[in-house]
Amino acid sequence: MKTEIPEKVLGRLTLYHSILTEYLDNGAETISSPQIAARLNIDDSQVRKDFKLLNNAGRCRVGYSVTGLKDSIEETLGFKKTKEAVIVGAGHLGLALAKYSGFNDYGLNILALFDNDPQKVDMTVNNKQIFHISRLPNLLQRLGIEMAILTVPPFCAQKTAEFLAQSEIKYIWNFTPVVLKVPADVKVWNENIIASFLQFAGQHLQKDD
Amino acid sequence: MKTEIPEKVLGRLTLYHSILTEYLDNGAETISSPQIAARLNIDDSQVRKDFKLLNNAGRCRVGYSVTGLKDSIEETLGFKKTKEAVIVGAGHLGLALAKYSGFNDYGLNILALFDNDPQKVDMTVNNKQIFHISRLPNLLQRLGIEMAILTVPPFCAQKTAEFLAQSEIKYIWNFTPVVLKVPADVKVWNENIIASFLQFAGQHLQKDD
Repeated sequence: MKTEIPEKVLGRLTLYHSILTEYLDNGAETISSPQIAARLNIDDSQVRKDFKLLNNAGRCRVGYSVTGLKDSIEETLGFKKTKEAVIVGAGHLGLALAKYSGFNDYGLNILALFDNDPQKVDMTVNNKQIFHISRLPNLLQRLGIEMAILTVPPFCAQKTAEFLAQSEIKYIWNFTPVVLKVPADVKVWNENIIASFLQFAGQHLQKDD
Repeated sequence: MKTEIPEKVLGRLTLYHSILTEYLDNGAETISSPQIAARLNIDDSQVRKDFKLLNNAGRCRVGYSVTGLKDSIEETLGFKKTKEAVIVGAGHLGLALAKYSGFNDYGLNILALFDNDPQKVDMTVNNKQIFHISRLPNLLQRLGIEMAILTVPPFCAQKTAEFLAQSEIKYIWNFTPVVLKVPADVKVWNENIIASFLQFAGQHLQKDD
Protein backbone atom coordinates (compact mmCIF):
# COMPACT_ATOMS: atom_id res chain seq x y z
CA MET A 1 0.00 0.00 0.00
CA LYS A 2 1.17 3.51 -0.78
CA THR A 3 1.51 5.24 2.56
CA GLU A 4 1.21 8.67 0.92
CA ILE A 5 -2.49 8.14 0.19
CA PRO A 6 -4.40 10.50 2.52
CA GLU A 7 -6.81 8.90 5.03
CA LYS A 8 -9.88 10.52 3.41
CA VAL A 9 -8.92 9.16 -0.03
CA LEU A 10 -8.22 5.76 1.52
CA GLY A 11 -11.68 5.78 3.02
CA ARG A 12 -13.26 6.59 -0.34
CA LEU A 13 -11.21 3.92 -2.15
CA THR A 14 -12.53 1.26 0.24
CA LEU A 15 -16.09 2.52 -0.39
CA TYR A 16 -15.50 2.42 -4.17
CA HIS A 17 -14.26 -1.14 -3.64
CA SER A 18 -17.51 -2.11 -1.90
CA ILE A 19 -19.55 -0.60 -4.73
CA LEU A 20 -17.43 -2.42 -7.34
CA THR A 21 -17.90 -5.73 -5.51
CA GLU A 22 -21.65 -5.11 -5.58
CA TYR A 23 -21.58 -4.29 -9.33
CA LEU A 24 -19.52 -7.42 -9.97
CA ASP A 25 -22.02 -9.53 -8.03
CA ASN A 26 -24.75 -8.04 -10.23
CA GLY A 27 -22.84 -9.01 -13.36
CA ALA A 28 -21.94 -5.48 -14.45
CA GLU A 29 -18.82 -5.22 -16.64
CA THR A 30 -18.30 -1.47 -16.70
CA ILE A 31 -18.97 1.44 -14.33
CA SER A 32 -18.66 5.22 -14.74
CA SER A 33 -17.29 7.74 -12.28
CA PRO A 34 -20.70 9.54 -12.15
CA GLN A 35 -22.36 6.23 -11.17
CA ILE A 36 -19.91 5.83 -8.28
CA ALA A 37 -20.12 9.50 -7.28
CA ALA A 38 -23.94 9.35 -7.19
CA ARG A 39 -23.86 6.43 -4.75
CA LEU A 40 -21.69 8.37 -2.30
CA ASN A 41 -23.27 11.80 -2.87
CA ILE A 42 -19.86 13.20 -3.82
CA ASP A 43 -18.60 15.01 -6.88
CA ASP A 44 -17.74 13.10 -10.03
CA SER A 45 -14.46 15.01 -10.33
CA GLN A 46 -13.45 13.82 -6.84
CA VAL A 47 -13.86 10.19 -7.92
CA ARG A 48 -11.78 10.70 -11.08
CA LYS A 49 -9.13 12.53 -9.04
CA ASP A 50 -8.93 9.62 -6.58
CA PHE A 51 -8.58 7.16 -9.47
CA LYS A 52 -5.48 9.07 -10.64
CA LEU A 53 -3.73 7.63 -7.55
CA LEU A 54 -4.34 4.09 -8.79
CA ASN A 55 -1.98 2.08 -10.95
CA ASN A 56 -3.81 1.12 -14.15
CA ALA A 57 -7.37 2.04 -13.12
CA GLY A 58 -8.72 0.04 -16.06
CA ARG A 59 -10.25 2.98 -17.89
CA CYS A 60 -12.05 2.02 -21.10
CA ARG A 61 -14.17 3.77 -23.73
CA VAL A 62 -17.47 3.30 -21.88
CA GLY A 63 -16.12 4.10 -18.40
CA TYR A 64 -14.08 1.74 -16.25
CA SER A 65 -13.82 -2.04 -16.27
CA VAL A 66 -15.34 -3.17 -12.94
CA THR A 67 -12.80 -5.98 -12.49
CA GLY A 68 -9.89 -3.82 -13.66
CA LEU A 69 -10.79 -1.02 -11.26
CA LYS A 70 -11.39 -3.45 -8.38
CA ASP A 71 -8.04 -5.20 -8.94
CA SER A 72 -6.30 -1.84 -9.18
CA ILE A 73 -7.72 -0.65 -5.85
CA GLU A 74 -6.77 -3.94 -4.20
CA GLU A 75 -3.25 -3.71 -5.57
CA THR A 76 -2.84 -0.05 -4.64
CA LEU A 77 -4.12 -0.55 -1.09
CA GLY A 78 -2.07 -3.71 -0.64
CA PHE A 79 -5.02 -5.99 0.22
CA LYS A 80 -2.98 -8.87 -1.14
CA LYS A 81 -0.37 -8.55 1.60
CA THR A 82 -1.84 -10.53 4.48
CA LYS A 83 -1.20 -9.32 8.01
CA GLU A 84 -1.86 -11.60 10.97
CA ALA A 85 -3.18 -10.46 14.32
CA VAL A 86 -4.85 -11.64 17.51
CA ILE A 87 -7.72 -10.03 19.41
CA VAL A 88 -7.08 -9.38 23.10
CA GLY A 89 -10.36 -9.02 25.00
CA ALA A 90 -13.26 -11.27 23.98
CA GLY A 91 -16.02 -8.90 25.06
CA HIS A 92 -18.74 -7.65 22.71
CA LEU A 93 -16.36 -5.51 20.66
CA GLY A 94 -13.71 -8.23 20.42
CA LEU A 95 -16.32 -10.79 19.34
CA ALA A 96 -17.81 -8.33 16.84
CA LEU A 97 -14.38 -7.81 15.25
CA ALA A 98 -13.71 -11.57 15.27
CA LYS A 99 -16.97 -12.09 13.37
CA TYR A 100 -16.39 -9.15 11.01
CA SER A 101 -16.31 -10.65 7.53
CA GLY A 102 -14.60 -7.70 5.88
CA PHE A 103 -11.11 -8.12 7.38
CA ASN A 104 -10.05 -11.15 5.35
CA ASP A 105 -11.00 -9.46 2.08
CA TYR A 106 -8.69 -6.62 3.08
CA GLY A 107 -5.66 -8.68 4.06
CA LEU A 108 -6.15 -8.88 7.82
CA ASN A 109 -6.13 -12.43 9.16
CA ILE A 110 -7.24 -12.75 12.81
CA LEU A 111 -5.88 -16.05 14.14
CA ALA A 112 -7.16 -16.20 17.71
CA LEU A 113 -8.68 -14.33 20.65
CA PHE A 114 -7.48 -14.03 24.24
CA ASP A 115 -9.42 -13.35 27.45
CA ASN A 116 -9.01 -13.92 31.17
CA ASP A 117 -12.59 -15.17 31.65
CA PRO A 118 -12.50 -18.98 32.17
CA GLN A 119 -16.06 -19.23 30.82
CA LYS A 120 -14.97 -17.82 27.46
CA VAL A 121 -11.74 -19.81 27.14
CA ASP A 122 -11.88 -22.64 24.56
CA MET A 123 -14.99 -21.18 22.93
CA THR A 124 -14.75 -20.71 19.16
CA VAL A 125 -15.89 -17.58 17.33
CA ASN A 126 -15.94 -17.54 13.53
CA ASN A 127 -13.49 -20.48 13.55
CA LYS A 128 -11.14 -18.60 15.87
CA GLN A 129 -10.45 -20.10 19.30
CA ILE A 130 -10.48 -18.05 22.51
CA PHE A 131 -7.39 -18.81 24.62
CA HIS A 132 -6.62 -17.81 28.20
CA ILE A 133 -4.52 -14.64 28.26
CA SER A 134 -1.75 -16.54 30.10
CA ARG A 135 -1.10 -18.53 26.93
CA LEU A 136 -0.56 -15.40 24.82
CA PRO A 137 3.26 -15.05 25.08
CA ASN A 138 3.89 -18.65 24.09
CA LEU A 139 1.30 -18.73 21.27
CA LEU A 140 2.42 -15.39 19.79
CA GLN A 141 5.99 -16.63 19.67
CA ARG A 142 4.99 -19.91 18.03
CA LEU A 143 2.73 -18.15 15.50
CA GLY A 144 5.20 -15.31 14.92
CA ILE A 145 2.52 -12.66 15.47
CA GLU A 146 3.47 -9.06 16.29
CA MET A 147 0.06 -7.36 16.06
CA ALA A 148 -2.68 -7.26 18.68
CA ILE A 149 -6.16 -5.75 18.46
CA LEU A 150 -6.90 -4.43 21.95
CA THR A 151 -10.56 -4.64 22.99
CA VAL A 152 -10.34 -5.07 26.78
CA PRO A 153 -12.29 -2.84 29.23
CA PRO A 154 -10.68 0.61 29.80
CA PHE A 155 -9.74 -0.13 33.42
CA CYS A 156 -7.31 -2.89 32.39
CA ALA A 157 -6.18 -1.48 29.02
CA GLN A 158 -2.84 -0.07 30.25
CA LYS A 159 -1.94 -3.20 32.21
CA THR A 160 -2.78 -5.38 29.22
CA ALA A 161 -0.77 -3.16 26.85
CA GLU A 162 2.29 -3.58 29.09
CA PHE A 163 1.77 -7.35 29.07
CA LEU A 164 1.53 -7.28 25.25
CA ALA A 165 4.75 -5.24 24.99
CA GLN A 166 6.50 -7.80 27.24
CA SER A 167 5.14 -10.51 24.94
CA GLU A 168 6.95 -9.03 21.91
CA ILE A 169 3.85 -7.41 20.41
CA LYS A 170 5.07 -4.56 18.18
CA TYR A 171 1.77 -3.18 16.89
CA ILE A 172 -1.34 -2.46 18.96
CA TRP A 173 -4.59 -1.50 17.25
CA ASN A 174 -6.18 0.17 20.26
CA PHE A 175 -10.01 0.14 20.36
CA THR A 176 -10.07 1.30 24.00
CA PRO A 177 -10.46 5.03 24.81
CA VAL A 178 -7.29 4.84 26.94
CA VAL A 179 -4.11 6.59 25.77
CA LEU A 180 -1.61 3.75 26.26
CA LYS A 181 1.90 4.12 27.68
CA VAL A 182 4.11 1.67 25.79
CA PRO A 183 7.84 1.28 25.02
CA ALA A 184 9.10 3.27 22.02
CA ASP A 185 9.41 0.14 19.85
CA VAL A 186 5.67 -0.58 20.14
CA LYS A 187 3.44 1.26 17.65
CA VAL A 188 -0.09 2.12 18.79
CA TRP A 189 -2.92 2.95 16.42
CA ASN A 190 -5.85 4.50 18.24
CA GLU A 191 -9.22 3.60 16.71
CA ASN A 192 -10.84 6.85 17.59
CA ILE A 193 -14.60 6.29 17.26
CA ILE A 194 -15.25 9.42 19.33
CA ALA A 195 -13.24 11.61 16.94
CA SER A 196 -15.16 10.11 14.04
CA PHE A 197 -18.48 10.90 15.73
CA LEU A 198 -17.40 14.46 16.58
CA GLN A 199 -16.53 15.09 12.94
CA PHE A 200 -19.90 13.69 11.86
CA ALA A 201 -21.62 15.86 14.47
CA GLY A 202 -19.61 18.87 13.39
CA GLN A 203 -20.53 18.40 9.76
CA HIS A 204 -24.23 17.75 10.26
CA LEU A 205 -25.84 17.62 13.68
CA GLN A 206 -24.81 21.04 14.98
CA LYS A 207 -26.64 22.67 12.06
CA ASP A 208 -29.87 21.31 13.52
CA ASP A 209 -29.34 22.48 17.09
CA MET B 1 -18.00 22.35 17.29
CA LYS B 2 -15.87 24.06 14.68
CA THR B 3 -16.36 22.05 11.53
CA GLU B 4 -13.14 23.40 10.05
CA ILE B 5 -11.00 21.39 12.46
CA PRO B 6 -9.34 18.65 10.36
CA GLU B 7 -10.11 15.03 11.29
CA LYS B 8 -6.50 14.31 12.31
CA VAL B 9 -6.45 17.31 14.68
CA LEU B 10 -9.85 16.28 16.03
CA GLY B 11 -8.45 12.84 16.75
CA ARG B 12 -5.49 14.32 18.63
CA LEU B 13 -7.71 16.72 20.61
CA THR B 14 -9.77 13.79 21.88
CA LEU B 15 -6.55 11.98 22.86
CA TYR B 16 -5.29 15.12 24.66
CA HIS B 17 -8.65 15.18 26.44
CA SER B 18 -8.16 11.59 27.66
CA ILE B 19 -4.69 12.45 28.94
CA LEU B 20 -6.01 15.57 30.70
CA THR B 21 -8.76 13.55 32.37
CA GLU B 22 -6.09 11.13 33.61
CA TYR B 23 -3.93 14.01 34.94
CA LEU B 24 -6.98 15.51 36.65
CA ASP B 25 -7.80 12.16 38.29
CA ASN B 26 -4.20 12.09 39.56
CA GLY B 27 -4.60 15.55 41.07
CA ALA B 28 -2.26 17.37 38.65
CA GLU B 29 -2.97 21.09 38.24
CA THR B 30 -0.72 21.91 35.29
CA ILE B 31 0.60 20.07 32.24
CA SER B 32 3.15 21.02 29.58
CA SER B 33 2.94 20.41 25.83
CA PRO B 34 6.11 18.23 25.95
CA GLN B 35 4.43 16.02 28.57
CA ILE B 36 1.43 15.52 26.28
CA ALA B 37 3.60 15.07 23.17
CA ALA B 38 5.70 12.40 24.92
CA ARG B 39 2.61 10.34 25.75
CA LEU B 40 1.56 10.25 22.10
CA ASN B 41 5.05 9.99 20.60
CA ILE B 42 4.42 13.13 18.55
CA ASP B 43 6.25 16.42 18.28
CA ASP B 44 5.84 19.09 20.95
CA SER B 45 5.33 21.75 18.25
CA GLN B 46 2.39 19.74 16.86
CA VAL B 47 0.66 19.85 20.24
CA ARG B 48 1.16 23.61 20.59
CA LYS B 49 -0.07 24.11 17.02
CA ASP B 50 -3.24 22.14 17.80
CA PHE B 51 -3.83 24.21 20.94
CA LYS B 52 -3.85 27.36 18.80
CA LEU B 53 -7.21 26.15 17.45
CA LEU B 54 -8.70 26.23 20.94
CA ASN B 55 -10.50 29.18 22.52
CA ASN B 56 -8.65 30.16 25.68
CA ALA B 57 -6.37 27.10 26.03
CA GLY B 58 -5.63 28.10 29.63
CA ARG B 59 -1.93 28.73 29.12
CA CYS B 60 -0.09 29.74 32.31
CA ARG B 61 3.49 30.44 33.33
CA VAL B 62 4.31 26.81 34.17
CA GLY B 63 2.51 25.27 31.17
CA TYR B 64 -1.25 24.81 30.88
CA SER B 65 -3.94 24.57 33.51
CA VAL B 66 -5.27 20.99 33.27
CA THR B 67 -8.85 22.05 33.95
CA GLY B 68 -8.59 25.12 31.71
CA LEU B 69 -7.25 23.08 28.81
CA LYS B 70 -9.80 20.31 29.33
CA ASP B 71 -12.72 22.77 29.42
CA SER B 72 -11.39 24.51 26.34
CA ILE B 73 -11.22 21.26 24.34
CA GLU B 74 -14.73 20.33 25.47
CA GLU B 75 -16.05 23.73 24.46
CA THR B 76 -14.23 23.75 21.13
CA LEU B 77 -15.38 20.25 20.19
CA GLY B 78 -18.92 20.95 21.35
CA PHE B 79 -19.10 18.09 23.87
CA LYS B 80 -21.64 20.13 25.78
CA LYS B 81 -24.19 19.93 22.96
CA THR B 82 -25.91 16.60 23.55
CA LYS B 83 -27.04 14.59 20.54
CA GLU B 84 -29.49 11.74 20.94
CA ALA B 85 -29.42 8.53 18.94
CA VAL B 86 -30.64 4.94 18.88
CA ILE B 87 -28.71 1.79 17.98
CA VAL B 88 -30.28 -0.39 15.29
CA GLY B 89 -28.95 -3.96 15.50
CA ALA B 90 -28.31 -5.43 18.96
CA GLY B 91 -25.55 -7.82 17.87
CA HIS B 92 -22.08 -7.80 19.39
CA LEU B 93 -21.11 -4.45 17.86
CA GLY B 94 -24.42 -2.80 18.79
CA LEU B 95 -24.13 -4.05 22.36
CA ALA B 96 -20.48 -2.96 22.54
CA LEU B 97 -21.45 0.57 21.47
CA ALA B 98 -24.39 0.58 23.92
CA LYS B 99 -21.97 -0.28 26.73
CA TYR B 100 -19.29 2.16 25.57
CA SER B 101 -18.83 4.59 28.43
CA GLY B 102 -17.10 7.27 26.38
CA PHE B 103 -20.10 8.48 24.38
CA ASN B 104 -21.88 10.35 27.17
CA ASP B 105 -18.72 12.27 28.06
CA TYR B 106 -18.64 13.45 24.45
CA GLY B 107 -22.23 14.53 24.11
CA LEU B 108 -23.74 11.44 22.50
CA ASN B 109 -26.74 10.07 24.37
CA ILE B 110 -27.90 6.63 23.20
CA LEU B 111 -31.51 6.21 24.31
CA ALA B 112 -32.43 2.72 23.11
CA LEU B 113 -31.59 -0.24 20.89
CA PHE B 114 -33.69 -2.01 18.28
CA ASP B 115 -33.51 -5.57 16.97
CA ASN B 116 -35.79 -8.09 15.26
CA ASP B 117 -34.72 -11.00 17.52
CA PRO B 118 -37.57 -11.73 19.98
CA GLN B 119 -35.04 -13.17 22.44
CA LYS B 120 -33.25 -9.82 22.69
CA VAL B 121 -36.36 -7.65 22.87
CA ASP B 122 -37.03 -6.17 26.35
CA MET B 123 -33.50 -6.93 27.52
CA THR B 124 -31.65 -3.97 29.03
CA VAL B 125 -28.05 -3.04 28.21
CA ASN B 126 -26.32 -0.30 30.19
CA ASN B 127 -29.76 1.00 31.22
CA LYS B 128 -30.91 1.11 27.61
CA GLN B 129 -33.83 -1.08 26.60
CA ILE B 130 -33.86 -3.21 23.44
CA PHE B 131 -37.13 -2.75 21.53
CA HIS B 132 -38.49 -4.74 18.60
CA ILE B 133 -37.63 -3.01 15.32
CA SER B 134 -41.36 -2.70 14.53
CA ARG B 135 -41.68 -0.13 17.35
CA LEU B 136 -38.95 2.10 15.92
CA PRO B 137 -41.07 4.53 13.84
CA ASN B 138 -43.44 5.28 16.72
CA LEU B 139 -40.71 5.59 19.37
CA LEU B 140 -38.47 7.79 17.22
CA GLN B 141 -41.35 10.14 16.60
CA ARG B 142 -42.24 10.32 20.31
CA LEU B 143 -38.61 10.82 21.33
CA GLY B 144 -37.90 13.21 18.45
CA ILE B 145 -34.77 11.30 17.42
CA GLU B 146 -33.28 11.74 13.95
CA MET B 147 -30.02 9.80 14.32
CA ALA B 148 -29.50 6.04 14.11
CA ILE B 149 -26.33 4.02 14.66
CA LEU B 150 -26.55 1.13 12.20
CA THR B 151 -24.99 -2.15 13.43
CA VAL B 152 -27.09 -4.78 11.67
CA PRO B 153 -25.51 -7.64 9.64
CA PRO B 154 -24.39 -6.60 6.12
CA PHE B 155 -27.06 -8.68 4.35
CA CYS B 156 -29.90 -6.60 5.82
CA ALA B 157 -28.12 -3.22 6.05
CA GLN B 158 -29.68 -1.70 2.90
CA LYS B 159 -33.19 -2.89 3.76
CA THR B 160 -32.84 -1.49 7.29
CA ALA B 161 -31.48 1.83 6.02
CA GLU B 162 -34.57 2.21 3.80
CA PHE B 163 -36.80 1.47 6.79
CA LEU B 164 -34.91 4.10 8.83
CA ALA B 165 -35.33 6.67 6.04
CA GLN B 166 -39.08 5.94 5.98
CA SER B 167 -39.08 6.40 9.76
CA GLU B 168 -37.81 9.99 9.47
CA ILE B 169 -34.22 9.19 10.42
CA LYS B 170 -32.04 11.94 8.96
CA TYR B 171 -28.58 10.81 10.09
CA ILE B 172 -27.17 7.29 9.87
CA TRP B 173 -23.85 6.44 11.49
CA ASN B 174 -23.11 3.36 9.40
CA PHE B 175 -20.94 0.70 11.07
CA THR B 176 -21.72 -1.87 8.36
CA PRO B 177 -19.34 -2.30 5.40
CA VAL B 178 -22.27 -1.75 3.02
CA VAL B 179 -22.46 1.45 0.94
CA LEU B 180 -26.06 2.46 1.64
CA LYS B 181 -28.52 3.83 -0.93
CA VAL B 182 -30.64 6.44 0.88
CA PRO B 183 -32.77 9.48 -0.07
CA ALA B 184 -30.82 12.74 -0.54
CA ASP B 185 -32.17 14.18 2.75
CA VAL B 186 -30.56 11.36 4.78
CA LYS B 187 -26.91 11.89 5.73
CA VAL B 188 -24.77 8.76 6.05
CA TRP B 189 -21.47 8.69 7.96
CA ASN B 190 -19.50 5.54 7.17
CA GLU B 191 -17.46 4.28 10.11
CA ASN B 192 -14.68 2.89 7.99
CA ILE B 193 -12.70 0.52 10.24
CA ILE B 194 -11.12 -1.07 7.17
CA ALA B 195 -9.78 2.28 5.94
CA SER B 196 -8.38 2.94 9.39
CA PHE B 197 -6.64 -0.45 9.41
CA LEU B 198 -5.24 0.06 5.91
CA GLN B 199 -3.72 3.38 6.97
CA PHE B 200 -2.21 1.75 10.05
CA ALA B 201 -0.87 -1.08 7.87
CA GLY B 202 0.46 1.38 5.34
CA GLN B 203 2.27 3.37 7.98
CA HIS B 204 3.83 0.46 9.84
CA LEU B 205 3.18 -3.14 8.85
CA GLN B 206 4.32 -2.99 5.22
CA LYS B 207 7.75 -1.85 6.35
CA ASP B 208 8.16 -5.19 8.06
CA ASP B 209 7.04 -7.39 5.20
